[in-house]
Amino acid sequence: MRFGLFGSAQAKRSGPDTDSSQGFRDFIDNNVEAEALGFYSTFLVEHHFTGFGQVSASLNLLTWLGARTGHLRLGTAVLVLPWHNPVLLAEQAATLDLLSGGRLDFGVGKGYRYNEFAGFCLPMEEADARFDESLNIITRAFTAEMPFSYRGKFWQFENIVVEPPTAQKPHPPFWMGAGSPDSVRQVAERGYNMLLGQHSLTEEIFGQVAQFRAEVEARRGIFEPMRVAVARAVHIAKNAADKEAALERRYQGHMRINALARCPDGDTRERFKSHEVEARYESAESALFGTPDEIMNKLDALRRGGVEYVIINFGGSRENIRRFARDIMPAFADAPQSLALAG
Amino acid sequence: MRFGLFGSAQAKRSGPDTDSSQGFRDFIDNNVEAEALGFYSTFLVEHHFTGFGQVSASLNLLTWLGARTGHLRLGTAVLVLPWHNPVLLAEQAATLDLLSGGRLDFGVGKGYRYNEFAGFCLPMEEADARFDESLNIITRAFTAEMPFSYRGKFWQFENIVVEPPTAQKPHPPFWMGAGSPDSVRQVAERGYNMLLGQHSLTEEIFGQVAQFRAEVEARRGIFEPMRVAVARAVHIAKNAADKEAALERRYQGHMRINALARCPDGDTRERFKSHEVEARYESAESALFGTPDEIMNKLDALRRGGVEYVIINFGGSRENIRRFARDIMPAFADAPQSLALAG
Repeated sequence: MRFGLFGSAQAKRSGPDTDSSQGFRDFIDNNVEAEALGFYSTFLVEHHFTGFGQVSASLNLLTWLGARTGHLRLGTAVLVLPWHNPVLLAEQAATLDLLSGGRLDFGVGKGYRYNEFAGFCLPMEEADARFDESLNIITRAFTAEMPFSYRGKFWQFENIVVEPPTAQKPHPPFWMGAGSPDSVRQVAERGYNMLLGQHSLTEEIFGQVAQFRAEVEARRGIFEPMRVAVARAVHIAKNAADKEAALERRYQGHMRINALARCPDGDTRERFKSHEVEARYESAESALFGTPDEIMNKLDALRRGGVEYVIINFGGSRENIRRFARDIMPAFADAPQSLALAG
Repeated sequence: MRFGLFGSAQAKRSGPDTDSSQGFRDFIDNNVEAEALGFYSTFLVEHHFTGFGQVSASLNLLTWLGARTGHLRLGTAVLVLPWHNPVLLAEQAATLDLLSGGRLDFGVGKGYRYNEFAGFCLPMEEADARFDESLNIITRAFTAEMPFSYRGKFWQFENIVVEPPTAQKPHPPFWMGAGSPDSVRQVAERGYNMLLGQHSLTEEIFGQVAQFRAEVEARRGIFEPMRVAVARAVHIAKNAADKEAALERRYQGHMRINALARCPDGDTRERFKSHEVEARYESAESALFGTPDEIMNKLDALRRGGVEYVIINFGGSRENIRRFARDIMPAFADAPQSLALAG
């Protein structure tokens, strides 16, 4: 199996006693060490206006990290396209890809948080159309050999050549999140790689991996297990109480995010449907929290369902990164098995 | 006196035999060495759609450089505000400022190249209004302690808190280019630092520095000579023929930029007024090209006119960076003199 890191960093707004850069420095140091310990990649979120210091300029933080690492792949999970001028974003991404010797994994999304659409004064109903248009433009920006013009609904460009060139050809791998059969199909249709969320249940993930494989093969593609990365939170617990406390923090954190994401005048989206008992079950089932043995059992189960690439949210704990690398990772060091197992 | 670097890097679109990242790597390596040699800062341009590989994502390239250096100041000269979402730009700039421990010099401009306005499909007539509005938003984004909303002509934001915080308080120093008495006055009025262009004649610079000092003092401010940085190209010539060839390259390069900058249907802006003889004179007079003695004489003249901070375009030549540091810089290592001399 292959393991990466997934998550954010936190730069708190500084009071007189706060060093607000500490959270970013910890993120960098954790990732530098993770590279040395055998982690393959890092995937970084992008969020705005939270008030609790989530990473907003993810490509910039990844660029600093790129300069401090040698082979760690640098992923976004995800860049939210509706916020960005697609040409500026393509330039920024290409700059990182070029500087890092082709280590960018270009994860993209449509956005889901109400507070971000509201903050940017963009109607949520435009998310899909903005996402599609931006992807068209970015793909052309990365690949066009001649100047091009674009007349879209949201963006217009005239006779442009987008520089610098990317290091990876024809462009960095595109990754896209999926949470429903329709979005899994879309990812396969576009030929992208697929990110599966850290709150999805194991059974859902099995279904999504199987569907993705079928969709790829139906289009005469070859299914590569490493084209699917599953996000998971890991906490190696000291004891039962520590595990319970970590699960409670996870649940509360998820609720805090949901509060930002929810439209104030009712929100019928799937993520808001579950009741507390159900939500607590999902939060716990999807977490890899517990003893190393418990965690290994859950990883084994994922692997049996066709998952070979897991990107892990350690909540910033360097100790857990080290223990995972020492106590868990070696047992999964063998070659991918799902090509033999699945199908 | 204080010396920095100024300029671009060049990432050529790669053919089968081109390594397009070489230009960026050279830029990084030059700057890492320049820091060790005693240069104080680097100022990086931002340009788009040139087709010859100028830097487009300047904050990203500076971020990589920031991770490779320890005290070099990281400047933009300039970020062209009309291209950018001001909130995203503030987030990117704050991320760099935070990661670098407060080394960002935030140079801003309105844009002047026709091909860029055309490429982004923005009317050139909006440059001033977009610049002003973006500066208002960015300043609030850097300094607001509470969430704020903004309803502008070009941008709207609702109840946002912009993160991360900057390391420098209340915000990184703002730098702004000036080329006319009106723009010098504006820079002083805003309380910003001033960048003077690499093609301005020595006498013009003297006038601009004197005016800036007078404007600052008229507003009961204290004139600090290090608040003015003058851009200059330096080439330490091997002999007369080498100097002539370098001057010719400089002139041709300037013409090439002017061709991109010029509106196709006539352009009456100041920069396009001079005839070839005059333009060649200006190009040569403003250049510090020649023997170390010739260059030192020109630097001495600048200092006598109140200039204490020169940011140098070496055209990417590491040899010239080294020779300047060895043969020229030590003669100007003493403390600023203009406070005593000018006024």
